[in-house]
Amino acid sequence: MQFRGKEVLTWSLNNYIGLANHPEVRKVDGEAAQKYGLATPMGARMMSGNSDLHEQLENELSAFVSKQDTMLLNYGYQGIMSVIDALTDRHDVIVYDAESHACIIDGVRLHQGKRFVYAHNDIEGLEKQLVRATRLVNETGGAILVITEGVFGMSGNLGKLREIVELKKKFQFRLLVDDAHGFGTMGPTGAGAGEHLGVQDQIDIYFSTFAKSMASIGAFVSSDEQVIEYLRYNTRSQIFAKSVPMPLVVGALKRLELLRNHPELRENLWKVVHGLQKGLRDKGFNIGTTEAPVTPVILSGEESEAAQLVIDLRENFHIFCSVVIYPVIPKGLIILRLIPTAVHTMEDVNETIAAFEAIAAKLKDGSYHKSDLKITV
Amino acid sequence: MQFRGKEVLTWSLNNYIGLANHPEVRKVDGEAAQKYGLATPMGARMMSGNSDLHEQLENELSAFVSKQDTMLLNYGYQGIMSVIDALTDRHDVIVYDAESHACIIDGVRLHQGKRFVYAHNDIEGLEKQLVRATRLVNETGGAILVITEGVFGMSGNLGKLREIVELKKKFQFRLLVDDAHGFGTMGPTGAGAGEHLGVQDQIDIYFSTFAKSMASIGAFVSSDEQVIEYLRYNTRSQIFAKSVPMPLVVGALKRLELLRNHPELRENLWKVVHGLQKGLRDKGFNIGTTEAPVTPVILSGEESEAAQLVIDLRENFHIFCSVVIYPVIPKGLIILRLIPTAVHTMEDVNETIAAFEAIAAKLKDGSYHKSDLKITV
Repeated sequence: MQFRGKEVLTWSLNNYIGLANHPEVRKVDGEAAQKYGLATPMGARMMSGNSDLHEQLENELSAFVSKQDTMLLNYGYQGIMSVIDALTDRHDVIVYDAESHACIIDGVRLHQGKRFVYAHNDIEGLEKQLVRATRLVNETGGAILVITEGVFGMSGNLGKLREIVELKKKFQFRLLVDDAHGFGTMGPTGAGAGEHLGVQDQIDIYFSTFAKSMASIGAFVSSDEQVIEYLRYNTRSQIFAKSVPMPLVVGALKRLELLRNHPELRENLWKVVHGLQKGLRDKGFNIGTTEAPVTPVILSGEESEAAQLVIDLRENFHIFCSVVIYPVIPKGLIILRLIPTAVHTMEDVNETIAAFEAIAAKLKDGSYHKSDLKITV
Repeated sequence: MQFRGKEVLTWSLNNYIGLANHPEVRKVDGEAAQKYGLATPMGARMMSGNSDLHEQLENELSAFVSKQDTMLLNYGYQGIMSVIDALTDRHDVIVYDAESHACIIDGVRLHQGKRFVYAHNDIEGLEKQLVRATRLVNETGGAILVITEGVFGMSGNLGKLREIVELKKKFQFRLLVDDAHGFGTMGPTGAGAGEHLGVQDQIDIYFSTFAKSMASIGAFVSSDEQVIEYLRYNTRSQIFAKSVPMPLVVGALKRLELLRNHPELRENLWKVVHGLQKGLRDKGFNIGTTEAPVTPVILSGEESEAAQLVIDLRENFHIFCSVVIYPVIPKGLIILRLIPTAVHTMEDVNETIAAFEAIAAKLKDGSYHKSDLKITV
């Protein structure tokens, strides 16, 4: 990536299996835009926004994630918000993981009924909330929707899907999983965290965006036929806004084909992931509890040091990555989040680990406190 | 448009000034997708989703709509939702028009404080709600946000922006206008309903999507520098989701250039609008109170007749348009909504008026009640 005219080694793009600049993807993207322009179709899906290719993509996605039916969503953020909104009414109770992505939280905020949150991946907490929720819906006649993620994007933790579906034996609920970071990266075929954990058939509503492994925009939701049929007629952001433009649909078909037929892309990703995560651990770095490509490097330092450090990393080591500080995480912590992809090399990994050793040493000896540090931006 | 393999004359695309298939647009769309692919940039605006072209588009939009600053939005629906959410907290009161688009309603639904609705374009009603709202914010220490539209998409009514800004003399509030249907169609330069009504400088926050005249997806919000600066750091759907992909940014720059420099596109649009609306009125059709290109044709009939009628129109007259029935409008009414564009011809207009006369006659004589009507779909 070019940052202000300088080449930087970038670890902040969710281009997991390297499709963004894959030659076949680039070819199809260009050709589809040439064939259709970027405007078509100029309508909501229910009006003039449908095409045979939209339907083909839905069918291929259904087959790939082992669900009966799929609805494309014109954008992931508003898509899942409206799906949550459409699935529930004021008699229903939503029970959700505290570390859910902002789009889930915004969807839950639209909900008119009760919502109970449980501490991140805390199955005992979830069970307690399910007891409360069950009591409530027994009164209202509503139902329970549990929402979690396949892979949590900040920590790389997997959602405890096995433990959650186990609770179906004791409680009645539907499970909605946002697998934005799992789709394409996890599971023997890349079908996501549900496949990886062997519980895909127990996920009632499966959601993923095209913004990560699929290197595009748009999203989809897959479920039983009757759920998807209901969603087609009740998902406000899809009924009252334009459908996915044709070149993005054609591009998604190509991306899905590569994702399915080229497991070596995913294997390359995991080679880089293992190299990076092992390398960092070997050098004593704390990378938390990640079980996915997402690699957080947890350091101790003040916010002012974090700012200096990330500029140093970018300007002097030519490494671009995301930094997370207070108020997202507690004061005194700095998290540098690395997103490995299939198109990073082991050379990139080694260069990055060396740079991290250097900046960690400087952080430790207080260099980032000194005002005479020369950083030109 | 092709509908199930047959060519139809389409009146349901918001391609107002005909940019969707404009040769220069198609050329730039194709070239930009070839140059960048559809994936880039793979990040939220605040992370790795910015480019000099994103900033250039913002600057050009600011100049065009006469505002200090502009923020691009990755999608209109979630964009305005999050803008409303970001602009208000629980101490604030939102006062909004009852016929606001679903995306505004969803934005208002996210609001934690009070919301007061006034009957569509009812300025007395608005004033009453402003009295209530003022009383309330005097207690809470909050502020008032009034939300309306430049052009209402179902009726073609303009928002009564002159009357609304007049109320600023009596009440303290900020005005947010969604000008989705006005941008590119209204005003001497096409800068929208605010320009048309001479009150653009009194619109505090100006929003438009790229989904109508700009024939694309994405959107923007323009306002004072400090408001936009605040929105950049507080608009959840923009901070936590990918920015507008490069080809759409490049495509929007080209569309904006054509919109600005080719007033004949807008003149063609209005020729078709006037021809269609005058023609329909001359034949005795009720087209309501439209002041914009949106042309609703209001008929009397049952829902079952509406279904037959719209199929007849499509299959036998090869005319494709949107139909609106109960529960969106009262029982016994059928509205056929026509969206004229710069790329319709007067021949299209005459053909359509003739077809409407034919279906109106059939509707009147009860043909659509008869079960032996032969319609193959």
